[in-house]
Amino acid sequence: MSQNFSYQQLFNFSKNIFLKIGCSDADAITASASLLSADLRGVDSHGVARLSGYIRLWEVQRVKAKPVIKIVHETPSTAVVDGDKGLGLVVAPFAMQVAIDKAKQVGTGWVSVKNSNHFGIAGKHAMMALEEDMIGIAMTNASALVAPTFSSERLLGTNPIAVAIPAGDQPAFVADFATTTAANGKLETLQRKNQDAPSGWVLTKEGKPSTDANEVKNGGLLLPLGGDKEHGSHKGYALGAIADIFSGILSGANYGPWVPPFPAYLSIPENMPGEGIGHFFGAMRIDAFRTADEFKSHMDKWIARFRSAKTIPGEDRVIIPGDPEREMEAERMKNGIPLLAAVTDDLRALGNKFEVAL
Amino acid sequence: MSQNFSYQQLFNFSKNIFLKIGCSDADAITASASLLSADLRGVDSHGVARLSGYIRLWEVQRVKAKPVIKIVHETPSTAVVDGDKGLGLVVAPFAMQVAIDKAKQVGTGWVSVKNSNHFGIAGKHAMMALEEDMIGIAMTNASALVAPTFSSERLLGTNPIAVAIPAGDQPAFVADFATTTAANGKLETLQRKNQDAPSGWVLTKEGKPSTDANEVKNGGLLLPLGGDKEHGSHKGYALGAIADIFSGILSGANYGPWVPPFPAYLSIPENMPGEGIGHFFGAMRIDAFRTADEFKSHMDKWIARFRSAKTIPGEDRVIIPGDPEREMEAERMKNGIPLLAAVTDDLRALGNKFEVAL
Repeated sequence: MSQNFSYQQLFNFSKNIFLKIGCSDADAITASASLLSADLRGVDSHGVARLSGYIRLWEVQRVKAKPVIKIVHETPSTAVVDGDKGLGLVVAPFAMQVAIDKAKQVGTGWVSVKNSNHFGIAGKHAMMALEEDMIGIAMTNASALVAPTFSSERLLGTNPIAVAIPAGDQPAFVADFATTTAANGKLETLQRKNQDAPSGWVLTKEGKPSTDANEVKNGGLLLPLGGDKEHGSHKGYALGAIADIFSGILSGANYGPWVPPFPAYLSIPENMPGEGIGHFFGAMRIDAFRTADEFKSHMDKWIARFRSAKTIPGEDRVIIPGDPEREMEAERMKNGIPLLAAVTDDLRALGNKFEVAL
Repeated sequence: MSQNFSYQQLFNFSKNIFLKIGCSDADAITASASLLSADLRGVDSHGVARLSGYIRLWEVQRVKAKPVIKIVHETPSTAVVDGDKGLGLVVAPFAMQVAIDKAKQVGTGWVSVKNSNHFGIAGKHAMMALEEDMIGIAMTNASALVAPTFSSERLLGTNPIAVAIPAGDQPAFVADFATTTAANGKLETLQRKNQDAPSGWVLTKEGKPSTDANEVKNGGLLLPLGGDKEHGSHKGYALGAIADIFSGILSGANYGPWVPPFPAYLSIPENMPGEGIGHFFGAMRIDAFRTADEFKSHMDKWIARFRSAKTIPGEDRVIIPGDPEREMEAERMKNGIPLLAAVTDDLRALGNKFEVAL
């Protein structure tokens, strides 16, 4: 069912494809690192499996290979970045670097981005802050699949939020999660296994509870974190809304039901109120609050305490956010990244078209 | 079962009690406005029902009536505030004002607070930013009641997060939620009605699923938003952890299982690594990103679209975060604030002790 490829092999393939469409060397490297980071961290739905999707967006001129990404408005601690239809995989690291540079100057930096598209996994961008002894934050909006509490319409994307916090001897705390009960990729896994979805994940397109893993594919609705009102779905809805507003409305991008879809074959919404999709990034210098050494020693104490907590029956450890992804990354760097046959076929077809060997 | 009191009557009572313990006139007014805001907005568990609890903390010298609240570290966009054991109801508005003042200067302001205690409702403080055309953010940690995913120990508080976002003709977007499936106050309501709790709210003290509304009172565990892993509780756990780290570790307050409890009769944790409880506040000037008029007209469009969305069977509207609390506030300003007999008795006893009439 699946075949393993080394990180370097997939990285080179991705880089060569991006070069073929006209990206600069630097951008092809940045985009490939963003993309492959998802495969390494186990978020297979956001990695090379999407490469041909990005290329199709370039083919229909919704993505530019040579964008002029620039700051269009700024204060000492903020900026709005216009992505000029560049790959989100490149626009996001640019904008996160602006946030980091501002944090170096005035303690924190906050950047809202318009005119971009899918940026890969949020956690990768937030983690850029770690090596600078900063806390990193990344979020994005996305095309609507999610029904707010009590709604039977898709009005929000899965709008992920990532927060990366440095530690000392312990590995960093890295939370990176969709603001839905479950990400769409988990439904796809259940579809392949012909299994039902748990309650609280999806509704039918009429807004009725369902456990059919094919529901969203058939026009149904994803549910915000919490599932229903009784289980706090108004909180997941609020989180998705905050990511949408910070990413879309602060910047001048689209928002809510007007965010354009990733698949190039889907038509874009009518009367879009903004430009492209939006992201939001933040960087906070630790020593803008207290010394990095003090902070990190307390983070180590926090992490050690939580990791060693007593567990519920049947579980052997309490997980620190970022643990599973870091362990997956180490394993896949060593043993390779498994790709499903359908993904390999898709990449080979892409390679044939652009005369790039996988 | 309950009796209505006017806002002004409860405000005056609260102010006079705070004056009696030695608060300045300004602090007694600020503290009472913070406290009563919870009653007005329908969060009865955090309002005047807690007044005698604050006074008991003063009696055991865990709260100072005349604190010297001050900035102990800062950069152009950040500060750490030492609350000097002042009422959180007073420390929080001080710190939020510091965030707002910094945002006026450099676009955004971010303030972490140590050496404080319970600050009332988060939303009230976040909303201070609205009149300045800023986005306001407020969070806090609290004593541990919540078990992280897979843990059978209480390691996190209910750690609420509030985000207030200005709009134009529409009322502001105000999200304010505990990072648990349900707040403890909702369990207390079920206890009074002798009803079961829904699944996903609590565990027994051994870490087994339960629907007993008395579980937490009997040593059991509150669950993070999501309930269990299958329903995304690792996301609620991450949110609670982020609020804990931003509030407690950035500032030098306590964190995790070491946050001191609100009830004065409970002993404080051993070997506390910091000072008091912690909060975190943020203010972002809208025009640090784009003009406030542009932003607000798009917020109006966002809110109108969500409010008019088609609904699921049995529901007649989609709620914008902040709608129920705003409607409750208008109703209670007009018709008064209902207090349960037990709360009225408690306030009368407090009034007798300090010679203040209710």
